Amino acid sequence: MILFHSEDDFLALIDRHFPRAGEGIVLSRGDDAAIIACPGQVCVTTDLFLEDVHFRRSYFTPADVGYKALAVNVSDVAAMGCRPTGFVLGLTSPDDADREYWEEAMAGMAGLARALDLPLAGGDLSRGDKLGLCVTIWGAPGPSGRFLRRGQASPGDVLFVVGPVGLARVGLAVLEKEGRQAAERFPAAVAAHLRPEPRLAAGLALAALPEVSACMDVSDGLARDLPRLLPAGLGADLFIPPALLHPEVTAHAAGHGRKPEKEAVFGGEDYALLGCVSPAGWPAVRAAVSGAAAIGMVVPKNAYTLNGAPFSMAGFDHFG
Amino acid sequence: MILFHSEDDFLALIDRHFPRAGEGIVLSRGDDAAIIACPGQVCVTTDLFLEDVHFRRSYFTPADVGYKALAVNVSDVAAMGCRPTGFVLGLTSPDDADREYWEEAMAGMAGLARALDLPLAGGDLSRGDKLGLCVTIWGAPGPSGRFLRRGQASPGDVLFVVGPVGLARVGLAVLEKEGRQAAERFPAAVAAHLRPEPRLAAGLALAALPEVSACMDVSDGLARDLPRLLPAGLGADLFIPPALLHPEVTAHAAGHGRKPEKEAVFGGEDYALLGCVSPAGWPAVRAAVSGAAAIGMVVPKNAYTLNGAPFSMAGFDHFG
Repeated sequence: MILFHSEDDFLALIDRHFPRAGEGIVLSRGDDAAIIACPGQVCVTTDLFLEDVHFRRSYFTPADVGYKALAVNVSDVAAMGCRPTGFVLGLTSPDDADREYWEEAMAGMAGLARALDLPLAGGDLSRGDKLGLCVTIWGAPGPSGRFLRRGQASPGDVLFVVGPVGLARVGLAVLEKEGRQAAERFPAAVAAHLRPEPRLAAGLALAALPEVSACMDVSDGLARDLPRLLPAGLGADLFIPPALLHPEVTAHAAGHGRKPEKEAVFGGEDYALLGCVSPAGWPAVRAAVSGAAAIGMVVPKNAYTLNGAPFSMAGFDHFG
Repeated sequence: MILFHSEDDFLALIDRHFPRAGEGIVLSRGDDAAIIACPGQVCVTTDLFLEDVHFRRSYFTPADVGYKALAVNVSDVAAMGCRPTGFVLGLTSPDDADREYWEEAMAGMAGLARALDLPLAGGDLSRGDKLGLCVTIWGAPGPSGRFLRRGQASPGDVLFVVGPVGLARVGLAVLEKEGRQAAERFPAAVAAHLRPEPRLAAGLALAALPEVSACMDVSDGLARDLPRLLPAGLGADLFIPPALLHPEVTAHAAGHGRKPEKEAVFGGEDYALLGCVSPAGWPAVRAAVSGAAAIGMVVPKNAYTLNGAPFSMAGFDHFG
C-alpha cells in the first residue's frame, strides 16, 4: 500500500488526471477559488456520493466510484436540459484508500470528464473514516437558452422516460447478494447500477422542444420522483407493460415472484429522464430522442393508477 | 431526541431557515438544479467541514458548526476580493444528530447567510457515520471587476495581514484541553476558532487598490500558506514582534515556554487575509483597511527569515 506523503502529493495526482485549462475556466485550481466565465444564466447542483450509503467498495471498483460520483451530478444537469461546463470536488479518504486506489478512482472520473470536455475547477480534500465525494457541478443551456424545470405539466400531457427504469435497482439487488459475479447473469443491470449513463443529448434535445413541459432525472424511483415532477393537485395514469422493461428486470422479478412493473416503479438510481409533453408534441419527442418511451398520462387529480389499478406512490427515503 | 420522519421533513427545516428567493436566484431549491444569474465572471470554491477532522461536537455548539462551515467558504471568496452571491450545501447526518441539533446548526448558518444576504441555492443530504458539511460557494467581484489572485507578488512588496494570526490555534489548543470552559481564560482565542470572521469588506477594499498584487486567506498557517501566495523563486523576511500578536497568543506561548511569533506563524484556521502590496501602495492599504498590519517584505530568493533569523516553512498537512 503506497500512501500519500502530503496534500501536494495528492494534488499532483489530481493534476495528472484533470487538465487545468478548459473552456470557460479563467483561473483554475490552486487559488482560494477558481474564476469561471458564465455569461447569462447557469444551473448549479450538488450531490454526495458516500461509501456504504451510495456505494460499497466490495463491488464498486475505484474507477466505478469516480465515474458514478460525477455521472449522477451530470445527470441532474442533463435533466435541466443543459450541458455541464465545470465542477468542483470535495473528497474524504480513509487510511486504507491508498495512492493506487485514488489513481484508479480519478481515472474513472477523468474519463467521463474528458468525454464531456468538462473541467475540474477546484476542490478540497480531507482524511475521513470513509470514502466520500461531494461534487458540485454547473451547466449552460443549449442554443434555445431554455432550462427544463419541473412542475409545469398539464392534465393530458404524455409522460415519457428516456433510459431504462428499474434496471439499476435489480443491479443493486444482485450486487448486494452476489457481488461482481452477478454481472455474469445480469450484465445490463449491474452496469446500470455501477455506470449509469447521463442522458445529456436527450436533455438538450428535449429543451429545444417547446411542447416539452417538464423534465427531471429519476434518482429515487418513479414512485417517489413522479409526484415531484408534477404540479400540486395532479396525478397520473401509468401504463408500464412488461415489454417496456429490460429483460433482466422481468427475469429478476419472475425469480422473486414480484410484478416486474413494480420493480420499475420503485427502483431507484436509474438516472433515466422523466418528462411531460403535450399530446401534440409527443411525435416530435419520439423523432428527436431515440429510446423515448411513453409510460402514461397526466390526470387532473392527485391520484395514480398503474396498469389500470389504483396505486400508492412511496419510494426510497434517506430518513424514512 | 426527535428524529426526522423523512427527507421532506428535513427539507422543511431548511426552508424555515433559508428563504428560497434571493438576488440572482432565478430558480431556487426543489428542482434537479438551481438556476442562477451570473453575468460575466464569478469565483467558485468548495470546502469540507467534517466532524473530528475540522470540528468536535464536544465543544462546538450546533450553531458554531453551521456558522463555521459557511464562514470558511465565505473567507475564500473574501480572499478573492469578491462578495459571495450564492451557495449550495451537501450534508451528512448521523443517527444521534436529531431535529433539535439541525435546527440549531441551520440557525447558525442562516444567521451568517442572512447577514450577507446570501441565498442557499440547493443541496443534498444523506445519512452518514459522522456529521459532515460540504459547502460550495460562488461570488462576484466588486465595482472594480478585479479578482485578487495569488502568485503576482514582486520582490520588495510589503506583506500584510488583516485579522489576527495564531489566535485560532491557541483557541484550538485550549478547547482540546479544557473544552468550552477555556473561554473563561481565552475568550478571544476560543471565539477565533469557533466563529472565525470572514474579512469580506477588507477583501473588496483591497481588490479596488491596483497596487495590491496578491491576496489569500490564511487557513493552514502563515508557514504553509505564505509560500503558496508567492510566485516560485521568491521568499520573505517576516517581522512579527510580540506587540503585533493578540495578548492571548503571547500569554499562551509564555505558559508553554514557546516563542509567541512561532505560534503565529504555525497557527492555522485564522482566516486572516494575507496580502502583498508595493511599498508605494502600502499607505493606501492602511487607509482603506483598518487593522491591516505589515508583517514583512518579499525577497528575491526562495528563503525565509523570521525576526532576523533563517526560518523553515512547514505547517499543517491533512496527509502529512
